[in-house]
Amino acid sequence: MNKRLVLRERPQGLPNPSTWQLVEEAIPSIDDGEILIKTHYVSLDPAMRGWMNDTKSYIPPVGLGEVMRAGTIGEIIETKHPEFKVGDVLSGWGGVQQYIKTDGQGHFKVDTSLVPMTKYLGTLGMPGMTAYFGILEVGKIKEGDVVLVSGAAGAVGSVVGQIAKINGCHVVGIAGGKEKCNYVVDALGFDACIDYKSENVYQGIKAHCPKGIDVYFDNVGGEILDMALSRLRMHARIVICGAISQYNSSEIYGPKNYLSLLVNRATMQGMVVLDYAKKYREAGMQMGMWMMEGKLKTEEDVYEGIENFYDTFLRLFSGEKRGKLLLKVIEP
Amino acid sequence: MNKRLVLRERPQGLPNPSTWQLVEEAIPSIDDGEILIKTHYVSLDPAMRGWMNDTKSYIPPVGLGEVMRAGTIGEIIETKHPEFKVGDVLSGWGGVQQYIKTDGQGHFKVDTSLVPMTKYLGTLGMPGMTAYFGILEVGKIKEGDVVLVSGAAGAVGSVVGQIAKINGCHVVGIAGGKEKCNYVVDALGFDACIDYKSENVYQGIKAHCPKGIDVYFDNVGGEILDMALSRLRMHARIVICGAISQYNSSEIYGPKNYLSLLVNRATMQGMVVLDYAKKYREAGMQMGMWMMEGKLKTEEDVYEGIENFYDTFLRLFSGEKRGKLLLKVIEP
Repeated sequence: MNKRLVLRERPQGLPNPSTWQLVEEAIPSIDDGEILIKTHYVSLDPAMRGWMNDTKSYIPPVGLGEVMRAGTIGEIIETKHPEFKVGDVLSGWGGVQQYIKTDGQGHFKVDTSLVPMTKYLGTLGMPGMTAYFGILEVGKIKEGDVVLVSGAAGAVGSVVGQIAKINGCHVVGIAGGKEKCNYVVDALGFDACIDYKSENVYQGIKAHCPKGIDVYFDNVGGEILDMALSRLRMHARIVICGAISQYNSSEIYGPKNYLSLLVNRATMQGMVVLDYAKKYREAGMQMGMWMMEGKLKTEEDVYEGIENFYDTFLRLFSGEKRGKLLLKVIEP
Repeated sequence: MNKRLVLRERPQGLPNPSTWQLVEEAIPSIDDGEILIKTHYVSLDPAMRGWMNDTKSYIPPVGLGEVMRAGTIGEIIETKHPEFKVGDVLSGWGGVQQYIKTDGQGHFKVDTSLVPMTKYLGTLGMPGMTAYFGILEVGKIKEGDVVLVSGAAGAVGSVVGQIAKINGCHVVGIAGGKEKCNYVVDALGFDACIDYKSENVYQGIKAHCPKGIDVYFDNVGGEILDMALSRLRMHARIVICGAISQYNSSEIYGPKNYLSLLVNRATMQGMVVLDYAKKYREAGMQMGMWMMEGKLKTEEDVYEGIENFYDTFLRLFSGEKRGKLLLKVIEP
């Protein structure tokens, strides 16, 4: 049987147990030109919360009754498509389900001989690409820049900070909890990390970026964005990548200090990783190289069982995870 | 005697009659290397409100007991400086006073044979330069862009919209009152103008920019910025030039729709005209040409008497003025 998680109702605020429904269907049979993928891992990302709202955004919302959209990686177990063979490993937009019937659109082959499967949903997948293009092309970092990163222990933030370090920046993270902060500094090599759960973030920014911030990479929004705005240097860049503190709010917190953009001739720019698709391969090669050289460390936090999707998803917002959050949905 | 307006106390919110004090002093005598300017006109600009707050900004605040900072234009009546002669007309930062003793720093000679003096505080002065560099270099307009301008009847906005029209854009203004809106459309040639005092601005934007906005030039901030954010096109640019609706507020309204920057891969960038000083001459020549060709119309709203500074200043915030607000301080 194929267990699939469908969107039952649109949540107000944080999703609840009745937001999704797990259904069981027969494993689909495929037609000519199609393949059947057995899903190994499903990617859990903050952006998924946005896809559940019935509002205009950069992609259409997930429809009610549809399988929940998600990045996946899995193995072809049946093929009627000339370009794919059984055993090929494909990363793509398979959704939260154990078997994916597709014509291959939105999926691409990956090489798991050097890199484990899970990396293709993390550093070599959307979060890594987001970090790479966000900090380099939107943040436009240069040597000596002071870079502040929120969500520093997360799938995107952890890579952003390391790429900034590789490029000679002074990098300060913001993360929740002492353990995460230690990880960010000791394992990932950030210069400092501010624990928003136990420290005054504004004072932390002041202490660790005494001359101000050249680039703020924002994954969280809310008051932390305001604190970063209040400490900008001239010509600073703010990369708006996400706003996890706001995704479950009915009213978005608008940054009251936005006029700091004027005072400091600074720029706040939004980004969506999909725009850089043509350059994913180039970025993947570069990041793979850094990984092999030991300059780019990445971690996945893997939970098991499609039945546990809801509990695992909530970890995105409670902060109880480190690095890339994945759900293993293949059954033994 | 020299009548000078000094800052007596820092206002909370809107300035009141005791914010400034008019003092009379002897006309200063000058030393070697100095000149004495008789002020003809003082420029009244929204930015002046910001200079009165004791906060870090792009220039230091006006000190208590100091002459209120303002742009001025006047004529040299005495000189002990080799580069200046009696009768030269100088534009500069003379402050709200009738006589200016200076070594010439911050003042520059202007040619009033072709253009009346008042234009050098308007279109050929700071407001015009702000408009020129803001819409061209920060807004990066190109032919066919949909451009929305708030404060459209003001000294900056009126020039912004006309430059955008000259560059082949579709230009929609926002202004207060039917008379101003008619002026913006009929005299200045904007394609449309939304009256925020009597119309629903959001519906107006929707109606006049049905495909969304490529460039929003913001002079006002507040909810209108939020409405513009909600109607951005892909890769839109927002120029943060000012926020007149917020200058007298104790708490700034933060734009709740800022995540539209993400969805639309859009940019919000602040600007300060002082950064473009090296290119003022080039811009002035271009705008002078447009004025002579009849493509760029500008208007000054001139009040008289340094005693009337306070009442005149308030017109900036009540909206009871059109085009560049000036105070004639020379006495017959």
